[in-house]
Amino acid sequence: MANITFTFEDSRISPVCVSSHAGERLLDIARAAEVAIDAPCNGNGTCRKCKVSIDGKIVLACETVVPADDLTVLVPATAGAFKTDIRTADLSDPRELAIFEKTLSDLAEFPAGKLFTTELVTLEQPNLDDPTNDLERLLTAVNAEHIALSAIRQLPKALRSDGELALLRTKNTVLNIGSPVPEPLGIALDIGTTTVVMLLANLNTGEILSKASAGNAQIRYGADVIHRIVEAERPGGLDKLNNAIIEETIKPLMRKLYAEAGVSGEQVYRFVVSGNTTMNHLFLKIAPDFIRLEPYTPAFNRLGALNASDLGLDVHAHCKLIAAPNVGSYVGGDITAGTLTSLLWKRSSGNVLFADLGTNGELVFGNGEFMFTCACSAGPALEGGDMSCGMRATDGAIDEVTIDAETLEPAFSVIGGGEAKGLCGSGIIDAIAELFRVGAIDGKGKFVKSGSRITETDGIMSYTLSPGVEITEVDIDNFIRTKAAIFSAIRTMLNAVGFTVGDIDEVLIAGGIGSAINFDNAVRVGMFPAIALDKYRYVGNSSLSGAYAMLLSNEAARKVDELARSMTYIELSTDPGYMEEFVAACFLPHTDAGLFCG
Amino acid sequence: MANITFTFEDSRISPVCVSSHAGERLLDIARAAEVAIDAPCNGNGTCRKCKVSIDGKIVLACETVVPADDLTVLVPATAGAFKTDIRTADLSDPRELAIFEKTLSDLAEFPAGKLFTTELVTLEQPNLDDPTNDLERLLTAVNAEHIALSAIRQLPKALRSDGELALLRTKNTVLNIGSPVPEPLGIALDIGTTTVVMLLANLNTGEILSKASAGNAQIRYGADVIHRIVEAERPGGLDKLNNAIIEETIKPLMRKLYAEAGVSGEQVYRFVVSGNTTMNHLFLKIAPDFIRLEPYTPAFNRLGALNASDLGLDVHAHCKLIAAPNVGSYVGGDITAGTLTSLLWKRSSGNVLFADLGTNGELVFGNGEFMFTCACSAGPALEGGDMSCGMRATDGAIDEVTIDAETLEPAFSVIGGGEAKGLCGSGIIDAIAELFRVGAIDGKGKFVKSGSRITETDGIMSYTLSPGVEITEVDIDNFIRTKAAIFSAIRTMLNAVGFTVGDIDEVLIAGGIGSAINFDNAVRVGMFPAIALDKYRYVGNSSLSGAYAMLLSNEAARKVDELARSMTYIELSTDPGYMEEFVAACFLPHTDAGLFCG
Repeated sequence: MANITFTFEDSRISPVCVSSHAGERLLDIARAAEVAIDAPCNGNGTCRKCKVSIDGKIVLACETVVPADDLTVLVPATAGAFKTDIRTADLSDPRELAIFEKTLSDLAEFPAGKLFTTELVTLEQPNLDDPTNDLERLLTAVNAEHIALSAIRQLPKALRSDGELALLRTKNTVLNIGSPVPEPLGIALDIGTTTVVMLLANLNTGEILSKASAGNAQIRYGADVIHRIVEAERPGGLDKLNNAIIEETIKPLMRKLYAEAGVSGEQVYRFVVSGNTTMNHLFLKIAPDFIRLEPYTPAFNRLGALNASDLGLDVHAHCKLIAAPNVGSYVGGDITAGTLTSLLWKRSSGNVLFADLGTNGELVFGNGEFMFTCACSAGPALEGGDMSCGMRATDGAIDEVTIDAETLEPAFSVIGGGEAKGLCGSGIIDAIAELFRVGAIDGKGKFVKSGSRITETDGIMSYTLSPGVEITEVDIDNFIRTKAAIFSAIRTMLNAVGFTVGDIDEVLIAGGIGSAINFDNAVRVGMFPAIALDKYRYVGNSSLSGAYAMLLSNEAARKVDELARSMTYIELSTDPGYMEEFVAACFLPHTDAGLFCG
Repeated sequence: MANITFTFEDSRISPVCVSSHAGERLLDIARAAEVAIDAPCNGNGTCRKCKVSIDGKIVLACETVVPADDLTVLVPATAGAFKTDIRTADLSDPRELAIFEKTLSDLAEFPAGKLFTTELVTLEQPNLDDPTNDLERLLTAVNAEHIALSAIRQLPKALRSDGELALLRTKNTVLNIGSPVPEPLGIALDIGTTTVVMLLANLNTGEILSKASAGNAQIRYGADVIHRIVEAERPGGLDKLNNAIIEETIKPLMRKLYAEAGVSGEQVYRFVVSGNTTMNHLFLKIAPDFIRLEPYTPAFNRLGALNASDLGLDVHAHCKLIAAPNVGSYVGGDITAGTLTSLLWKRSSGNVLFADLGTNGELVFGNGEFMFTCACSAGPALEGGDMSCGMRATDGAIDEVTIDAETLEPAFSVIGGGEAKGLCGSGIIDAIAELFRVGAIDGKGKFVKSGSRITETDGIMSYTLSPGVEITEVDIDNFIRTKAAIFSAIRTMLNAVGFTVGDIDEVLIAGGIGSAINFDNAVRVGMFPAIALDKYRYVGNSSLSGAYAMLLSNEAARKVDELARSMTYIELSTDPGYMEEFVAACFLPHTDAGLFCG
């Protein structure tokens, strides 16, 4: 047995020391010890990202077997960057925040501040004439069935300080005691297949105290839900995937939220999660195996009362865990929560198409009278995945592009100003739409013009927007499949329920595309149907805003439950017309160009 | 910042690596890192037990400040021996076990097996005609309000295996699912000031699957409850004391219980704790400060429904935590639980004196009509503490002694056979009673005879029973104060409620004295009143047997609650006669020898 000591370039991280046998692989030792070293290729030596330093020499952790002697490994500050990428919060973009706030102000019928009450009581201090114990003294003064342990812990000293006691309570339970008692807090969590976003809010006022986001650490087990399910089916796989989301993603984000707001987990009494059906299963460590097997049955759609501390989260022992309900295997809580904030259900006439475009695309079509829903596998292109220069809609991302028809020179804007580092969803749509508009690429996405910005590397043509930021034919091909999946899903679903795109009165787009989305361009590339542009609206991260609404209000949570029950789920994969629609849509804008004329 | 790596002579313990600043004391670093190094003197350099090895050199951790460089510290296998002394289970003595079993068989009116039911259901597997999700499918088939997360986790695979499902459930909640479902288990925990004992039992059958005991790791903060309370009042003190009992004592014992029985904490649905009032407070991390301050008011006597997982224990998320209720500041759950198994409350006539003699002595006097109770500070002499050669009633302990009046040669028995290592409570009583009977010591406990076994070291006389096992005048003095505290408490309490020792019809003795207790000798030294010896009975660890009864039966737990409510608490420390009685009893057998004639 040798001792392996991991030290960290990031001095805030304490060294980690473990025993190992000679011949074990360093990457496996690091994983077992929960030392974060990125390995997107899952340790097969191809991505070359798991670099660490031993005696000043850089090695790949996946290619290093440990010797019989003790070893000190220096983990560079960039390792685990994906995991610890919690500096870039969604909602850090003021435009996204404005959309979020507008969405919530539209939901004024579900106000905050009704979950808890603060009761003031004055108790006589214990004395020789009445030495009744503290808890019994309290119970004779207040009408409550339970006193939480945390409240009992506060009682002896609070009782013996001067003045009245403030009790934070629900109808039946006293949760905390103080003079004054700290405000109750809650967490809303949006678990995306690619990105996880969280916010911490004051449950009395709705004020957001801090927000944070990170990549979903499960990404190392595959980019989409099907790969994750397959991995979860392996021996120990469910534990690994649950560990990746709980220990590696959510817990660090929670620490960030608490540190930024200067609060402790003891104050957190409510935790709302919205995610797709697979994410919900993996979060709760429930086998998702049967989601992908006929008859495509989730283990659950709606859960009863659960306790967030059951998952080992650092929250109050009485913290309720509420999961936005799933509708089916591929339409989950992110969509039901998002449907709440879409306000689609408030429309008494006209038909709304609500589309949440992430790694999966989900659609809801309807109004206050009826709702149909379906899902398609969009892939991560719109969130920056699968693209050579893709990134999330955060600082450094190109989010708007125009290209001069003569010179092919681009003009673009970069989120946060500064140098361009990559392209977010809206930038990708713009760039490809513009390349197509100026005739640089054809309907198949192949370059048909030449110019100084169009180059070839290893037989692959690409267009350079900025030094190091380019779009390749492979990227364009990935994008075309994404937009085709979305468009064909819209068409197939509408067909299935007897509607056409002409019946759509409003289109609401949610997801990580970014607020700069240019709907003209999205229609130009054939992602969305050719209807009047003023019918389109971007609604931001509706899964998060829905979770936030559910966090503040039981009525909002009940409304989401009601919406989930009233949705009719349509399975596209068993629809014989879907594959035909998809193939027809794999062209710019579409093989049936007539659909995009006029 | 330097890295300190603790390595362990015990190869089963993984190295622990932490950062430190130069100048920090090694003992403090070890404590912060939860590295077990004994320091009974609390690190003031007097006990010299905190030995560790650095570069092959033995040093005291309390006297070593760390340098600016990295350091590797070897912790010897004997360090933390007190903490990890979990080999010696109470109930390992077959006589103790027989008493335990007899006690429980007397409680047949509270049978096991009524806490949970196993329901068998057959569900149709999901199919294309009815792809209802698993949880909803279950909920339509069974009548339950809640399905525990653990049960939902079992559901997908159990549902798709052949045959019927077995549900482990209470009236409202389905706790687990299987085919078959594992038996529900529970833990009974007796927290003594000095010794902690635990057992793991099958809740359906009552079968004891494993048992374990250890010293209470809080002992480093003081031998009695008053010292512990004073330590808990210091900044961070409550956390330290709670950590010592939960992390250092109870969690290792639970791991031992689980390993020995080959089960997981997930199967544990009920956890009953009995301890004195201070131990109960520290276990729950509730400030015990006001226990020792006028008007001597505990924070609680009886708790409502609590959850064992709130304390971070490795048990099922729905595991109920039940604490035997306290009666007052110095009569706690150990006594109310013990009173249940004493069966005192079943006597319709005659008066029973029930005495639990540990570090504290507690008395209950009464029958089915009335019950008085009081406490005295006996000190740890009867559990082997405060005695130069004292030990618990386990292998190697001398538990019975006779001394030849002519030669002063001893004859003794050793628990487990083999060589004598020390004296347990019954052995101490015998040895001192015999030394007094043969005239080797006088009524003040001073040696008045000489012989080869009576020697003097540093001015202190002692009697050697066996090589390395001796009784000193200091030991005898400690013992006399212990027996005086007990006897004077009995007298004062009886006086206070208008009874005399002549009114006692039965005496039940519980605690760590051991089953070999010789009541003739206990009366001879003036510990117990001089009444007919056939009225005395040893009832073993009644706190543990009471907790075990409460573990198996809600009715038993309710009965203990009822007993606690019906007890009248008498505060001896405010009784003006108590100190006088105590001083008079500090003599062998008593200054009023007439009390022990006839």
